[in-house]
Amino acid sequence: MSDKILIETSARHVHVTKEHLAILFGEGHKLTNKKDLSQPGQFACEEKVTVVGPKNSLKASILGPERPETQVELSLTDARSIGVVAPVRESGDVAGSGACKLVGPCGEVELTEGVIAAKRHIHFAPADAEKFGVEDKQVVSVKVDTDGRSLIFGDVVCRVSPKYALAMHIDTDEANAALASGEIYGEIVK
Amino acid sequence: MSDKILIETSARHVHVTKEHLAILFGEGHKLTNKKDLSQPGQFACEEKVTVVGPKNSLKASILGPERPETQVELSLTDARSIGVVAPVRESGDVAGSGACKLVGPCGEVELTEGVIAAKRHIHFAPADAEKFGVEDKQVVSVKVDTDGRSLIFGDVVCRVSPKYALAMHIDTDEANAALASGEIYGEIVK
Repeated sequence: MSDKILIETSARHVHVTKEHLAILFGEGHKLTNKKDLSQPGQFACEEKVTVVGPKNSLKASILGPERPETQVELSLTDARSIGVVAPVRESGDVAGSGACKLVGPCGEVELTEGVIAAKRHIHFAPADAEKFGVEDKQVVSVKVDTDGRSLIFGDVVCRVSPKYALAMHIDTDEANAALASGEIYGEIVK
Repeated sequence: MSDKILIETSARHVHVTKEHLAILFGEGHKLTNKKDLSQPGQFACEEKVTVVGPKNSLKASILGPERPETQVELSLTDARSIGVVAPVRESGDVAGSGACKLVGPCGEVELTEGVIAAKRHIHFAPADAEKFGVEDKQVVSVKVDTDGRSLIFGDVVCRVSPKYALAMHIDTDEANAALASGEIYGEIVK
């Protein structure tokens, strides 16, 4: 398994600023850690919000901790179902991205931007990046060998930071296209 | 474009038997052609049914003409959202596939099997198969070069028949994973 990379499927989720958290859940509210994620310090929260688009709405969990910008990560299936635009972007690159409304138990936030479909990517700690021979921002392809829907994902961005742990992230559309369920692994093909 | 193959995205849909059509839409009901599809004789219908699973339900169009077996083709996102199992299968291979209920304006049909996620495939007329050097049931890979989510689909089944016209069919999850919208083309890589 040493040349393989764990692939994790990110369900739709929301990152929030402190300010938006206070509006949605009330002044002084603290996010409740439901489950630690693979990336150090990141966690799925008990808190959920409703993501409202022109056509429909859906529930999404918040991922903590708070961030400098509120960001809604949807699959393209999700985005279409509620009638919002979700450009494929790297996390944090939200300028001019999609709009929606977030509704929490204590209030609402109108986002003029922040809705994206995450660009598929691999998190590397620096030692992992060295081992795999990749650099930050390098674009690679990753082969996934499932039984029935094997494929090779192109346009996979490598992200290298001491804050990261080795894992590839895809969204639910991408996971379904690869018939990826349970613990699956991919292999970089350059 | 001569070495490229048109890729069409199949939204969720239902094929029905004459018997089930009569139950769902009333005795003697004829399917209404809304739009001819790329495959000769196949057409999208005005008629829609509700596909009901244990968790939720969704609307799906019927594709005509009637078939010997009722078959519900969902994306895996759809299947999960309504709580049904949809094994990845070739069209017609419904034995032991997923269960659901279909509801039409005149009646309901309980399907003990028939729900599938379509295995990605290419329809070839015999002359096209010869040109591309493939045989019926051969499994190939198809490269899709979109801006941002390029990929190579593996496990693509070639289906050859004089009844077919050249086109590859993927579902909405697969289209989203490839950022495929509008008219897109793929290239067979063996």
